[in-house]
Parts: sequence; structure tokens; C-alpha cells
Amino acid sequence: MSDITHLLELVADDMHHVEEKMRSGVAERYPDLAAVVDYLMGAGGKRLRPVLSLMASKFFTADPDKNYALAASVELLHTATLVHDDLIDHALLRRGMPTLNASWSAGSTILTGDYLFARSAELSAETESVRIVKLFAQTLMTIVSGELQQLFNDGHDQVPTREQYEQRIYAKTASLFSAGTEGAAILGGATQAQEDALRKYGDNLGKAFQIMDDVLDFQGDEDVVGKPVANDLRQGIATLPVMLFSQNNPSHPTINTIKKAIIREDVSDEEILAIVEAIRTSGAIETTLEEARHYARQAQVNLQIFPDSQYRQAMLEIADYAVARDV
Amino acid sequence: MSDITHLLELVADDMHHVEEKMRSGVAERYPDLAAVVDYLMGAGGKRLRPVLSLMASKFFTADPDKNYALAASVELLHTATLVHDDLIDHALLRRGMPTLNASWSAGSTILTGDYLFARSAELSAETESVRIVKLFAQTLMTIVSGELQQLFNDGHDQVPTREQYEQRIYAKTASLFSAGTEGAAILGGATQAQEDALRKYGDNLGKAFQIMDDVLDFQGDEDVVGKPVANDLRQGIATLPVMLFSQNNPSHPTINTIKKAIIREDVSDEEILAIVEAIRTSGAIETTLEEARHYARQAQVNLQIFPDSQYRQAMLEIADYAVARDV
Repeated sequence: MSDITHLLELVADDMHHVEEKMRSGVAERYPDLAAVVDYLMGAGGKRLRPVLSLMASKFFTADPDKNYALAASVELLHTATLVHDDLIDHALLRRGMPTLNASWSAGSTILTGDYLFARSAELSAETESVRIVKLFAQTLMTIVSGELQQLFNDGHDQVPTREQYEQRIYAKTASLFSAGTEGAAILGGATQAQEDALRKYGDNLGKAFQIMDDVLDFQGDEDVVGKPVANDLRQGIATLPVMLFSQNNPSHPTINTIKKAIIREDVSDEEILAIVEAIRTSGAIETTLEEARHYARQAQVNLQIFPDSQYRQAMLEIADYAVARDV
Repeated sequence: MSDITHLLELVADDMHHVEEKMRSGVAERYPDLAAVVDYLMGAGGKRLRPVLSLMASKFFTADPDKNYALAASVELLHTATLVHDDLIDHALLRRGMPTLNASWSAGSTILTGDYLFARSAELSAETESVRIVKLFAQTLMTIVSGELQQLFNDGHDQVPTREQYEQRIYAKTASLFSAGTEGAAILGGATQAQEDALRKYGDNLGKAFQIMDDVLDFQGDEDVVGKPVANDLRQGIATLPVMLFSQNNPSHPTINTIKKAIIREDVSDEEILAIVEAIRTSGAIETTLEEARHYARQAQVNLQIFPDSQYRQAMLEIADYAVARDV
């Protein structure tokens, strides 16, 4: 259940076309940038967003080339936001590899991200669908708004509410998963019910993935996940495990340190590890996992209106994988 | 001829709607960002891109709201690139005011630019026209590619060719002017000849403006234009006055310093001022001005196919203004 290689194989031929679209135009014009784009493209992601978009497209009959353009647009938009995000966060490690800005100048990083935005916009327009382009623009706005919220919002001085957390994981992850699967429905001329189902599948699955990431941020070993444990909290971001722990243990001795971390005061490595230990032994991780599983199950329910097929089966199994993986 | 306030008045009512579209959505969601956007919006620009797009729209009958969306999209795309540009260039002054990144963190600057890209994409999609959205995506790609070219291109170690210069001013300025006027033709259901004419008008006018900016960079007084003289050369960018001077005076004693500046070696303020003096007395400025006037005249010729009207007249006068202004 924790290996989905055989599922990804189902759309491997389509993904070949998607990869071509993602890379096209770079190498001829900007050999230096091509190396960077190759590096970004090959940095170990599973390409779940385009893969799920392609799988969703199999419920319909549409011009494959438009589906490839949509899938490539979604993945490039994801990559573009990661590139700028790295610069914004000054993250030192992502996927266990040095981030772009560690070896490049800030200027090159901004421009590389902008290039990927531009290419992503071009690809979304290649679908010739105004609705797809609107979906692209809205998704970009949702992602950027989520980051602005994080930067500006007054919620920063306290543990976020459940509503704020949901908004955050939607903006950060679910919106793009959802754009890929809903976009496939739009291109396929789906009924309203089918379109709603695929939008919700992407939304629920994206949330399951993000909540699982938030679990792994507390469970994971630095050597395995390639970044320090409680990385979010170190950056002042309280995720669901922290929220549940704080709610259920309001007078725990680590609560003050959590509050310090959230207002971005200096917190030592020892203090962080004490919080991690407290959260791990509190049951908050298990409850968070339950939440992730809830969203994964919802995603599976969303697919009930479609007839059985190997693609539907794969989409169901990917929902299981989302909450069973350990990296 | 150097004051176009009365021309801008012609579309003042329309511009009111455009401004509203540019600002809408920010204040409610991000009060902190709203202040920044207001600052960027009010930073003294003449809004020539949306103004010309609106004037061009008057040759046709189209839904005014779509024309406003197009004009707002063009101006926001321009603003977005300026915001990232400032960060890339580490420019200290623009329009005589502190740039965004001088007072903000790099992260806020990147996100503010991304927000403006997203809003610009939303507005272009509001036109409900796939062709407009494609024009938007292509223009963004052209602008970003121009900046990448500047960052990566091997042309950096020598005085650029005429072709490289044309590409640069197209990417930097003419592409967006042209997107605004061509976009108005597309929304207006123009004939192919009308569309070509308005695209070329924007292209030629944009080039006239940029070449004039390059002239002013050598003529201007720091107190008037709000940035140091020969600012481009200080950043290693050789514009037309430098190109013409180098071509006509290959053994002038300042040529070696020019080459040093272009490969971004340290060049002192005295050395820069010696180059400026040499260029000013060489006739290169006058020849460059002639080039700018040539493009302005071409832009006027492009409008010949349209019947006379106050808007056509204004567009002709703005072409005169482009090369007559002293700031």
C-alpha cells in the first residue's frame, strides 16, 4: 500500500507527453535555465497532481493534447510556487536536496519562478478553454493568498483556529490537486455532478496529503524525510498536531514555548524537541492521522458516481497511499 | 507637447473603472497589502499602457467591462514585473521613491509581485477571451524571457548587437504597450488589418518610449529623473547611446571602461561620468533621439487606417509626447 509505482505506470505514456510539454521551449532558448528546470523537474516528486489529472481525464473523451497541457500547467504552477516559496522561507532543504536559492542568486530564483508561472499560464491557455484559464488564475490567487495570509495575518500570534488551518491546507495543497481533477472534468465536458465529484476528490485528497505531511513532520526522522523534525513549528507555523495538543493540554509546561515559537521568538533546539516529545506521547498524532484518514475516505466516496475502471481503482488506492506512507 | 494631461482626461472616466478593478479584492482581504498596492498604484505613473488600450478600444464597439479588465490586467502585469525587477536589480530608487524591497523583506516583495501576477491573470480571464489570455501569457513570457536573457546571455561580455537591443526593448516595454492595443482590437472584433495596425502602433510607440528613456538616462539630471545618470551602464547594461558611441569611436580612451562596466567589473563614479561626458559630446545622443523619433513616426503611420477621432488624435499626440518629454 505504500508503493504506488504500479499505479503511476498506468499513465506513464501520457506523462511522457506531459513531461515534454513541461520542458519544451527552455533548452533552445536558455541552456542555463534548462539545467535548472531539469533539476527542478527531476527532484524526486511523484508528479501526483498531473497523474491524478490524467487519471480523472480517463472518465471522459477529450483531446489528449489538451489534457497534457492542463496536467503540465498544474505541475509547473506547483513547481513555480515551490521555487518562490523556498526563497521566502529560506528553507535549507527540500526533498533532501539543496534548494534553488542556496546555490543561486535571489534574482535568478525569482526569475526562474516567474518563468515557470509564464509557461504554466501559456499551457493553461493551450487548452483553449476560458474555464480552465479561470481555474488556473483562481488557483494561483488561492495559493498566493494563502502565503500572504501566513505572512500578514494577525492569527500569527496565537494557535490557529480549525477554520484557519483548513484554509491553509486548501491554499497550500488541496487547491492544486483539485484544479487538476476538476480541470479534467471541464475539458471532458462532464456533467455538473461529475465535475463537483472530481473537484471534491482533489480537494479531499489534497487535504489528506497535507495533513499526512503535517503528521510526518512530527513522526519523521530527519534522515528519512530530509528535513528537520517539527520544521513548521520552527518557522512559527502551528499545524494540526500542535493545535490538538494545545487544545487538550492547555496547562502543559511546553505550551508557553509553543506560543513563543508561534510569535517567532527564539526557541532552542532542545525546547523544540521537548515539544515534539510531548506531542508524540499525547495522542495528538493519532487523532491527526484519523483526520487525514477521514479526508482520504471522503475522497474515495466522491468517486462512487463513476463506473469502475483501472483508473478509478488507482485513484482509490492513491487515497489509501496518501495516509499510509511513511515519507 | 510635453504635457499630456488633457489627453489622459479623454479616458478619465474609463480609467476610474480600471483603477477600481486594479484595487478590488485587496483591501478586504489584506489590509497590509492594500497599503502597499495603493502605494505602488499611486507611485506617479501616467498609466499609459491602460490609457492607450482604452483609446484603442474606442475604434470598436465592445463590452466596456471587458476593456476595463484588459486595461487593468495590462497595468497590473506591468506593476508585477516592476516589483520583482526592483528586487532583482536591487534598485535603490524608482520614480524618485524608495522601492518596495528597500523597506520590506524580500519574501513580502516576491509575494506582492506574485499577487499582482495572479490578479492580472484573473483580470485577463475576465475578458472571457481565449485569445486575450494567450496574449497575456505570451506577454508575460516575453517579459520574463527578456530578463532571463539579460541574466544568462553570453552577450553580456560585449556591447550588444542592434538585434539584441531591439529584442530587449521589445521585451522590456514594447510588448506590454502592444498587448494593450492589440488586445483592444481583439475584444473589438477588429479586422486583421486593424489588429495588425494596433499591435504595431503599440510596438513602435513602446520602442519610442524605451529609447527615449535610454536617452534620458544620459541626459537627465539626477534631481529631475530621480535616479543616477547612466544608471543602466552602472548595472552593466549598454543601451543605444553606448552602442552608437562604441561603434563610432572604437579607439576612444573610455572604451575600455565601457567594456569593464559591461562585464560588471567595478567602475568608479568618476569613470562613469567621463563616459557620460564623452557620449554626450559625441553626437550619439542626437542619433539615438532620431531613432526614437523614427519609431514614434512609424506608430503614427500605423494609425492611418483608422478614421479621425479625438482618440486617434490623442494617440498621435502621445507618440509626439513620447519623444519630446524631458522626464
